[in-house]
Amino acid sequence: MEKKAIKKVHEAIGSANLLTSVEDRTCYSYDASGQIFFPDAVALPESTEQVAALLSLAETYRFPVIPRGAGSGTTGGALPVHGGLIIAFSRMQRILEIDADNMIAVVEPGVVTGELQTALKEYGLMYPPDPASLKFCSLGGNAGECAGGPSAVKYGVTRDYIIGLEVVLPGGEIMQTGVRTEKGVVGYDLTRLFIGSEGTLGIFTKLILRLLPLAEAKATFLLSFSSLVQATDLVAKILTAGLLPCTLEYMDQTAVQIVRDRLSFSLPEKTAALLLVEFDGSTDEVQQQERRFTEFVQRQGDYLLQQAKDDKETQELWLARRSIGPACLNLRPHKIAEDVVVPRSRISELVQLTEQLSQELDLIILTFGHAGDGNIHVNIMVDKQNRQEYNNGLQAKERLFQCVLSMSGTLSGEHGVGITKSPFLAQELDQTALAVMQRVKDLFDPYNILNPGKIFPASQDNEQTGTS
Amino acid sequence: MEKKAIKKVHEAIGSANLLTSVEDRTCYSYDASGQIFFPDAVALPESTEQVAALLSLAETYRFPVIPRGAGSGTTGGALPVHGGLIIAFSRMQRILEIDADNMIAVVEPGVVTGELQTALKEYGLMYPPDPASLKFCSLGGNAGECAGGPSAVKYGVTRDYIIGLEVVLPGGEIMQTGVRTEKGVVGYDLTRLFIGSEGTLGIFTKLILRLLPLAEAKATFLLSFSSLVQATDLVAKILTAGLLPCTLEYMDQTAVQIVRDRLSFSLPEKTAALLLVEFDGSTDEVQQQERRFTEFVQRQGDYLLQQAKDDKETQELWLARRSIGPACLNLRPHKIAEDVVVPRSRISELVQLTEQLSQELDLIILTFGHAGDGNIHVNIMVDKQNRQEYNNGLQAKERLFQCVLSMSGTLSGEHGVGITKSPFLAQELDQTALAVMQRVKDLFDPYNILNPGKIFPASQDNEQTGTS
Repeated sequence: MEKKAIKKVHEAIGSANLLTSVEDRTCYSYDASGQIFFPDAVALPESTEQVAALLSLAETYRFPVIPRGAGSGTTGGALPVHGGLIIAFSRMQRILEIDADNMIAVVEPGVVTGELQTALKEYGLMYPPDPASLKFCSLGGNAGECAGGPSAVKYGVTRDYIIGLEVVLPGGEIMQTGVRTEKGVVGYDLTRLFIGSEGTLGIFTKLILRLLPLAEAKATFLLSFSSLVQATDLVAKILTAGLLPCTLEYMDQTAVQIVRDRLSFSLPEKTAALLLVEFDGSTDEVQQQERRFTEFVQRQGDYLLQQAKDDKETQELWLARRSIGPACLNLRPHKIAEDVVVPRSRISELVQLTEQLSQELDLIILTFGHAGDGNIHVNIMVDKQNRQEYNNGLQAKERLFQCVLSMSGTLSGEHGVGITKSPFLAQELDQTALAVMQRVKDLFDPYNILNPGKIFPASQDNEQTGTS
Repeated sequence: MEKKAIKKVHEAIGSANLLTSVEDRTCYSYDASGQIFFPDAVALPESTEQVAALLSLAETYRFPVIPRGAGSGTTGGALPVHGGLIIAFSRMQRILEIDADNMIAVVEPGVVTGELQTALKEYGLMYPPDPASLKFCSLGGNAGECAGGPSAVKYGVTRDYIIGLEVVLPGGEIMQTGVRTEKGVVGYDLTRLFIGSEGTLGIFTKLILRLLPLAEAKATFLLSFSSLVQATDLVAKILTAGLLPCTLEYMDQTAVQIVRDRLSFSLPEKTAALLLVEFDGSTDEVQQQERRFTEFVQRQGDYLLQQAKDDKETQELWLARRSIGPACLNLRPHKIAEDVVVPRSRISELVQLTEQLSQELDLIILTFGHAGDGNIHVNIMVDKQNRQEYNNGLQAKERLFQCVLSMSGTLSGEHGVGITKSPFLAQELDQTALAVMQRVKDLFDPYNILNPGKIFPASQDNEQTGTS
């Protein structure tokens, strides 16, 4: 950014809302992708009007603008790969409205997902999407990436709960999309075009969310298996049997080890895989699901089924599950974290491939995640200083992606493309669709101001040019 | 269309797939909106390639192309308001694949919604969207309008079940969008941009659908009220109490009269409104919901609750409910049929307004529909030959729309904009959003070939220029 542009930004939002020191910029130079790119400045706007003023300046002075939630994204969506101005939403985190009668909430993009969920409990309501980072990630970031979470198997993902948006477009115009009602089909569905667009088409300044009644009760089960395939095979059977858990999470042996260390109760010695299965609903319904599920498991084979006996054990299980992502960095200093999706019937093939890659390329590869919807988190652990290991890691990623696409899968279920997957985009997408997406980008953002270098394959492989 | 263009179309798809006689064109000149516009010709393609050839010719010879499902749309979406070529899908109605393990189906756009549902039953699966016209409407048309239906209150609408598309773009290029998996966030969500775009951006030639396990059991209730407001007030209470019916339909007194004549069992003499409430799920679950709902109703007041005692009575109820739309034409020869949506808490206000309009303007106005999601069908009955009555009808529609928008509602929950609502679009949509939609249209269809005159406000009020 030119000095003059920074000066104008300063005039527009005031020094209290602008960070330019190296120390401050360092804090905004990385995200959960483990890569580092420095912004020229960081704006902390307090209003839609300030965001609009920033985007107007960006058009005049042609500097990149990168919207940032909590930096919990794993594909580098919030990184300023070409420098420029980060707009962070830590000062736009108000819950503007909870309309309990109509089960609608209106929030600013900086609201932390878990904090909204806590606030809604008092009203007997819930907002289902529950990314593992829910204690710190923001709803604006969730919307930008179309985040999912364990509950997606029953409740769907972010796009299913955002029904309207306030968006600032490149140039600074403010637009309202969508509705405040359960249904609405007037005009093109701009709301869902923006959801998952990774901050490349516009910047959200308000989100209208639909809510559900809070589930009265929950039952949490842990199933232990002596082989991985036993676990993944059971997943499709659970769902086609008409059981509808709100969680159907799977963990492989390495993930089991991480979880084991964090539990106060013991797991069988020879556990090679776990399924975490949860049912919610009214007290009656949950009791019935408990009974049906227990009977179902008994019919399937001799698996050890444990039920969390109280809230404390349930909390413990979830804390353990959510810690897998961060904790695996104890195994190796870096990870290549992918969130591929395959048709449920092919999960077993996919995890077998990862075991094979692990052996062939001498890598630690953890797999865990949302087996219920075929969305498996594959964490390839590497030390980037070790060139051989890192290259093997990249090779494993490439072979994983090829395999996923050959199974009619997709490269991302909930993390988005960002920079880490953009070199592979053309392998998944139809050539015409990719060209159309590029034209949509050009239509909204002709000067490529918003989050440049994201989603679309650039000339370079960004992953390898990251400075971390 | 120029003669030369028709000749080229003839060469491209053969005489067996082209209709040009007045008799044949008459059959394609109207839809459920009650208006008449003649196409120059009607193509019945048998393949994606034929559709592509037609769109390529349309670009060369600049004639309008209007995709048509079963013509069951109520906003005129399938009408050739500027002449041109209708593409009808009665020869592209194959179910291409049912992947029961992964609960996915792939279909051609001409498949009748109800026929897919019947086919899926054998696999123990279901496709939830259930427009009243499900016995004859097509999945391609449902996708074009983002159709809903009674089950939307529990299961959502068409956009929630279409995860991928094959689309022929203006000019003839073929594009694949979306995924075959439960989740997917790679690139922009073109699939949902196309759903509900009313045939103005591209023509669907294949749809990938996600399915659910078939509900094992159902329980159907009919609640009779001596006043309309009693019925509508109960709706929000049912949902906030955490009861989740798969149907929560409401009928006013005029609709009750139509239904009454079609039932073999009797309704109380003084019934001023009905709620049709249905629960589905496993046998156990449904028994529990039955019990909870019955107790809930008893706590609420002295309402007559009847339960369908067998499948025959349930079928009868549904047949009666679905016949309201067509049968109300026995009251007056034409109807202005709207599907407005308001926040659930304001349904009572809305129906009171319609009663007031009915008295003030001396009109028969029926209201019924999906109270569970605030989506009320308002049928304003008129005789178009009677200018005074017709003008009063149009005035009632305008005042209805103003009222809906003042309640933060939307003009269409599931019928789309078409031509009947396009004059009102700017009243609902943000000016910037409308301009953006127009630019999206221009991006995809620069020569305005696809379904011209739809959605966007034109220079004329189409409703009044219709020749019916």
